[in-house]
Amino acid sequence: MISISPLNTNSLAFVQAKIDNKTKPVGALGALEPLALQLALITAQRVHKSSGFNLSEGKDSGKISINNPAMLVFAGDHGINENSVSIAPSAVTKQMVINFLQGGAAINCFCQSNDIALTVVDCGILQPISHDDVSQIRDGATDNVNFVEQRLGAGTDDFSVKAAMSTNQVKQGFDCARLLIDAQIEQGVEILLLGEMGIANTSSAAALMSALTSFSVRDCVGRGTGITDEQLEKKISLIESALQRVTISEHNEENLTQERVIELLSELGGFEIIQMVSAILSAATANIAIVIDGFIVSVAALIALRLDKNVANYLIFSHVSQEKAHQLLLENLMSAQTFTDSNSQALLNLGLRLGEGTGAALALPLIKASASFYNNMASFESAGVTV
Amino acid sequence: MISISPLNTNSLAFVQAKIDNKTKPVGALGALEPLALQLALITAQRVHKSSGFNLSEGKDSGKISINNPAMLVFAGDHGINENSVSIAPSAVTKQMVINFLQGGAAINCFCQSNDIALTVVDCGILQPISHDDVSQIRDGATDNVNFVEQRLGAGTDDFSVKAAMSTNQVKQGFDCARLLIDAQIEQGVEILLLGEMGIANTSSAAALMSALTSFSVRDCVGRGTGITDEQLEKKISLIESALQRVTISEHNEENLTQERVIELLSELGGFEIIQMVSAILSAATANIAIVIDGFIVSVAALIALRLDKNVANYLIFSHVSQEKAHQLLLENLMSAQTFTDSNSQALLNLGLRLGEGTGAALALPLIKASASFYNNMASFESAGVTV
Repeated sequence: MISISPLNTNSLAFVQAKIDNKTKPVGALGALEPLALQLALITAQRVHKSSGFNLSEGKDSGKISINNPAMLVFAGDHGINENSVSIAPSAVTKQMVINFLQGGAAINCFCQSNDIALTVVDCGILQPISHDDVSQIRDGATDNVNFVEQRLGAGTDDFSVKAAMSTNQVKQGFDCARLLIDAQIEQGVEILLLGEMGIANTSSAAALMSALTSFSVRDCVGRGTGITDEQLEKKISLIESALQRVTISEHNEENLTQERVIELLSELGGFEIIQMVSAILSAATANIAIVIDGFIVSVAALIALRLDKNVANYLIFSHVSQEKAHQLLLENLMSAQTFTDSNSQALLNLGLRLGEGTGAALALPLIKASASFYNNMASFESAGVTV
Repeated sequence: MISISPLNTNSLAFVQAKIDNKTKPVGALGALEPLALQLALITAQRVHKSSGFNLSEGKDSGKISINNPAMLVFAGDHGINENSVSIAPSAVTKQMVINFLQGGAAINCFCQSNDIALTVVDCGILQPISHDDVSQIRDGATDNVNFVEQRLGAGTDDFSVKAAMSTNQVKQGFDCARLLIDAQIEQGVEILLLGEMGIANTSSAAALMSALTSFSVRDCVGRGTGITDEQLEKKISLIESALQRVTISEHNEENLTQERVIELLSELGGFEIIQMVSAILSAATANIAIVIDGFIVSVAALIALRLDKNVANYLIFSHVSQEKAHQLLLENLMSAQTFTDSNSQALLNLGLRLGEGTGAALALPLIKASASFYNNMASFESAGVTV
């Protein structure tokens, strides 16, 4: 059973006063201020849950702690790409996984540049990584990348004509991702960053978004990494036909049963999306902040939110991508956050449309900067500043 | 005499092809792509200027190099604050300088968090830092901060009634800032970040912006760190009266004479603004990228641009602040950049309104990430990816 603690907001006024008393005009650090508030409340929830909750008590008890950031990139293939809904053939998913393992992709550069441990998870790409691939990787390795295999199959079935997978595969995906996250946390990870790779996974994500919100398929579908008008129309019509099999009368309700969500995921899901839903729920259960990347990861967050609304306050939205549905989805997700009533927006707006976790990795320094000002900046009293 | 090389754009197509051939869809890294282009051209200009220019030749010749980032925070006081145009008394400038030296300000946290060497420059605050202040600093020091004194006076005169300073003070400011930047570059600095501290310096910046552009004083004036409606009206009327002394008929022309600019700066300038103008010109002369912070630093960039339009391509705009004039000014400055015709925007939009160089420091990881993907990411051929 999922059971995520709501953030204890008893200390909200204490934390806000601490931020307001830093040597700067109130609010002058903009979006970094509610972010520091969120990180302080999450840290307090994690550190104090077993011994009562008092942020102001004890040495360093009020400090934000986000040590050992870990990026997990979940990869999977999608049967719907038999209909060429992406710019690339499905074989590219595996080629890119090998590229990750060789240290040659954008996500490698950004993890290295920002001191983030990188793990790539094969959730079910078409062909597993073989011994030959591995020896190539060992030779060409320029980077330290962990690799985990927890394959739910060799790509999903084409969800435009039948269920993408069985409900057992969904449950298996939930289980193995939970164990993976638990192991990461056991190793000291205090902030989790998520990314994905899977040719055609925007189709699955768009279908799930439309099924779980009031947005039409057309609202939820974009050009992915760059398809033509014709491909876009085909993508919309394939997803619309799939949605005829799925009747989600409760699509705007927050508490769908877990059974209904599992059914929905088996119809429309992707192996990497399912494992990310479970990763988000597991990290939030352990009171770990989760940095959300682009559209696909945001859809995983939406699904997690439908399973337990308390997940919302553990999410940090790294960027808004060029995928138009992403902006709509972010507004939806942010409105579920309760620790602040300021108008939220994602941290970055750089026109990224790559995935892989690149936006999340790029946002980490801003998150660390928030923690740094909260933990280390002087107060007016301590600095002798008289404003 | 100022003499800044234009960026040699012969290699533009070569650099763009290198970016487009990285293992990602064309353009998928959004704003980081034109930034990498700019950094590659700047590096090439610096490395190859004495030996001809061929980016594709030789080992590593095409790599971006932005080692030893240095943040210089220029501080000065402003006579116009006798009229209370800011939320704070001028004494706060010195208190904040001491806070910088003690490691307690936001800029200390962000420089530490992002591995940036920090130097604070007293360009002429009301009271110099004394031995007593220094011993306090030594005791409380939590951070490694360099301190440079190159004071042009004890605060400027009130520019609403007379010239802020003499033309000799302006020239002295240009000279000492040039020597400071030359020394930084001598020590290996390959990217310069600028910040400022000076109670009421938005008044001086707004006056200079209005004098040098077609924007009205009302367009150029904002609330700084948070003044009232009444203070805002007073600020506007004081600046308008000052501008009656200054007739800049050529205000939209790019090539004002240096004499005219020195005259203008003596009438309306601030000691820190003048030293930043010179810092920008000196860094651009040495083909060093310059990261621009908020409104005040952007005005310094505008002045530098009026002295030599070739400075434009060496500027990186870190963020757009909440100061409304900043957006107008950024559009103006970016339109002078010639290395790309994509619609530019500042890297960050976080609602910051603090100054100190905080936006520039926060943007540095994005700049390093751009360099990292350009230098280290695999090409389609090298990775065996078939898109």
